Amino acid sequence: MLARHNPQLNKHGELIHLLSTEGLSREILTHILDTASTFVSVSDREVKKVPLLRGKSVFNLFFENSTRTRTTFDIAAKRLSADVFTLDITRSSTAKGETLLDTVANLSAMAADIFVVRHSESGAPYLIAQHVAPHVHVVNAGDGRHAHPTQGLLDMYTIRHYKKDFTNLSVAIVGDVLHSRVARSDIHALTTLGCPDVRVVGPRTLAPESFSAMGARVFHNLEEGIKDADVIIMLRLQNERMSGALLPSSQEYFHNFGLTQEKLRWAKPDAIVMHPGPINRGVEIDSDVADGKQSVILPQVTFGIAVRMAAMSIVAGNEA
Amino acid sequence: MLARHNPQLNKHGELIHLLSTEGLSREILTHILDTASTFVSVSDREVKKVPLLRGKSVFNLFFENSTRTRTTFDIAAKRLSADVFTLDITRSSTAKGETLLDTVANLSAMAADIFVVRHSESGAPYLIAQHVAPHVHVVNAGDGRHAHPTQGLLDMYTIRHYKKDFTNLSVAIVGDVLHSRVARSDIHALTTLGCPDVRVVGPRTLAPESFSAMGARVFHNLEEGIKDADVIIMLRLQNERMSGALLPSSQEYFHNFGLTQEKLRWAKPDAIVMHPGPINRGVEIDSDVADGKQSVILPQVTFGIAVRMAAMSIVAGNEA
Amino acid sequence: MLARHNPQLNKHGELIHLLSTEGLSREILTHILDTASTFVSVSDREVKKVPLLRGKSVFNLFFENSTRTRTTFDIAAKRLSADVFTLDITRSSTAKGETLLDTVANLSAMAADIFVVRHSESGAPYLIAQHVAPHVHVVNAGDGRHAHPTQGLLDMYTIRHYKKDFTNLSVAIVGDVLHSRVARSDIHALTTLGCPDVRVVGPRTLAPESFSAMGARVFHNLEEGIKDADVIIMLRLQNERMSGALLPSSQEYFHNFGLTQEKLRWAKPDAIVMHPGPINRGVEIDSDVADGKQSVILPQVTFGIAVRMAAMSIVAGNEA
Repeated sequence: MLARHNPQLNKHGELIHLLSTEGLSREILTHILDTASTFVSVSDREVKKVPLLRGKSVFNLFFENSTRTRTTFDIAAKRLSADVFTLDITRSSTAKGETLLDTVANLSAMAADIFVVRHSESGAPYLIAQHVAPHVHVVNAGDGRHAHPTQGLLDMYTIRHYKKDFTNLSVAIVGDVLHSRVARSDIHALTTLGCPDVRVVGPRTLAPESFSAMGARVFHNLEEGIKDADVIIMLRLQNERMSGALLPSSQEYFHNFGLTQEKLRWAKPDAIVMHPGPINRGVEIDSDVADGKQSVILPQVTFGIAVRMAAMSIVAGNEA
Repeated sequence: MLARHNPQLNKHGELIHLLSTEGLSREILTHILDTASTFVSVSDREVKKVPLLRGKSVFNLFFENSTRTRTTFDIAAKRLSADVFTLDITRSSTAKGETLLDTVANLSAMAADIFVVRHSESGAPYLIAQHVAPHVHVVNAGDGRHAHPTQGLLDMYTIRHYKKDFTNLSVAIVGDVLHSRVARSDIHALTTLGCPDVRVVGPRTLAPESFSAMGARVFHNLEEGIKDADVIIMLRLQNERMSGALLPSSQEYFHNFGLTQEKLRWAKPDAIVMHPGPINRGVEIDSDVADGKQSVILPQVTFGIAVRMAAMSIVAGNEA
Repeated sequence: MLARHNPQLNKHGELIHLLSTEGLSREILTHILDTASTFVSVSDREVKKVPLLRGKSVFNLFFENSTRTRTTFDIAAKRLSADVFTLDITRSSTAKGETLLDTVANLSAMAADIFVVRHSESGAPYLIAQHVAPHVHVVNAGDGRHAHPTQGLLDMYTIRHYKKDFTNLSVAIVGDVLHSRVARSDIHALTTLGCPDVRVVGPRTLAPESFSAMGARVFHNLEEGIKDADVIIMLRLQNERMSGALLPSSQEYFHNFGLTQEKLRWAKPDAIVMHPGPINRGVEIDSDVADGKQSVILPQVTFGIAVRMAAMSIVAGNEA
């Protein structure tokens, strides 16, 4: 039975940890999206709270710093009425030489319910999930280049919101795909949800042919890559790549792969433009596009809160 | 109609952002003080909470560090039952090159209700207020040398508490007025509330004649400046001024403008002594005065919580 | 009357501050442990909260950094439904030259109920307790080498949980006793609770003869020190000692005083092994022991939350 080998699922096939979009069935992905849709309206209410996680303890364990992502989990947990504890890992016992698993064992002993884990090492959230007590649930908030499942799921939520159905879509992921955990989580989710045309677009150094093994078509030319696309997901170009060996210059990158209003016409007229943020205006995306009417970048942020509420409430509701 | 041009007010003339005491009518200032008086008792209760902002999201955006002011807003928001999110701006996306307005747009998309903004640039909270979605309210927690309206209002609350009426008072503001946003917010509020005698007192380098344009009388001699005053507001001397070009030495400053019990006799016998804190004992104020029976420095702190509760609950209650 | 001289007690002999286990009667120590036992189950509930401190304001004042201890107080306070405010002291007004007592007076004026204080100077929490307003309570979270009463009490809770009665026990405290506030708090509590045989074990440089004045027997040989012991409390060896003048090397330390499964056989067969954490695997304790079935290190962490809930709810319930 597959469930036995998938650390994200219990023996009934229910989600107990969210570590990756890889290995999750269409039913589970759809269940998360459906649950999220019930939470979208919570943030519009006068009282933006539901009592689903009241009295539960959520620990933010960000071994890699990310104020933005940490804040979205903090908001999501508090709107579920949980108590949230954010550890300053860089100043904590881990810095005193305590092992990762000892830190986690200690926090588990304080009766934690959910660990939200971000780590620069791929696989760290898996290691933690394998060692926590049965009452503790792990949500991966980004590990190395490996996975960023809540970002992948909020992207799916956004696409479904605007395009209704995945089975007729062409989705292009553009930019530094090589280093992107978002791209990996998107590709796994899109293929599972039945998207027939997933494209990876970028220079050879950042969009290697190996992505075809994941079911994506690889393009090194922006016009071909986004031609007649329904959805364009632009990726952030990390500053550290811009003048490195992988790229000649940010100007040349923008010339070849930066999305302008003019190039956007290559896609379908009703194509939506997405970006995980924070955006580099004038590097991977022009301000006209980022602020234009095809941009759904800010709705992504709004949906992200609902998707994180869904992920936390689902895993916390299932027994290991 | 003036309201149309004042970004703090909606078209009905109601307060939707608190950016400055300048441009607010006597009625609005009095409404904030009256509302604060209903909150003073909340902090004395067994359960120090009212549910006015339950389920609302307050974001502390401190682009300039201030643990003390941030804490007072944190306390005020939680006593109103809000959820409070404090962003470590120096480590956030802004540090990754994201623009101020993109950061704010992202947080708005997370369904923020109130931004409490502190910034070293004068005007930054105005810029934010002009760009936020209609459901979002901005409270200025200090911008450059420009304004610190909640400090100005807690000073007004304190004066009204001890002196009942503004229309017969002499109020002296002493020290580094030039660099003080507190002084500017105090002067605007005092003149609007009908105080007939506002004085600015300090060396020529720190209390320039230009303050007379704001309706204050300028003095360069402490005895003349505080003679028969009802209220003395001492300002903190920033460490960085002490040995700079603007001042010969902190000893000489204390000799000329530091407030001692002896010099305090120049003021009225029932004069109160105020200070926005943190105080520099022996620099601008002697310990005998700071801890003496005319000092109302700690009551200012207490009233500050109530005034911030009032400001947040009022702006959040009005539609843009 | 002793109560008059003990700053931890009011005139009725009730606990109003928890500063040290020294000077507290067996009745008071037992009352804290009994209260803690009612809280142990709270952390196992679906909703891990009781409303005892609802609307109270708890301030974490950590002048010495400790993410772990701060987190346990944060959890304990929130499970009592308090609002918790953590001040980043290193960036606060204290850093601007404000005195400790001015900082505390300001926070008191914000209607604080409890200060949780950690400070590198022995006695700092006493100084604060002597100067706070009558409605404010102080809990010492560790001061210099002097005391760490909540750690001492959670150690007592753990011993009582596993051994039921103190009056027949041999308890050995092993390691860097000289620099350990935990050891001092343990020794005071153990002798008050009637433990007839308290032992201090370590090299001469770290376990000086002077501890015999506190009622402990001093050993410089591990076998003699833990022989037939019921309880072994291993202390963390601070990294800074390891290659200093006090110790030849961490290898030699481990050889002489590190606890292995083999050496553990010198103690009683049902002896429990404790450690305040974070543990240094392979320095003062072998992984086989730390993870072995005689180890109660993780239960200590669990009980620590309950003991801190007890300490805070008891002091907050008594009038000064």
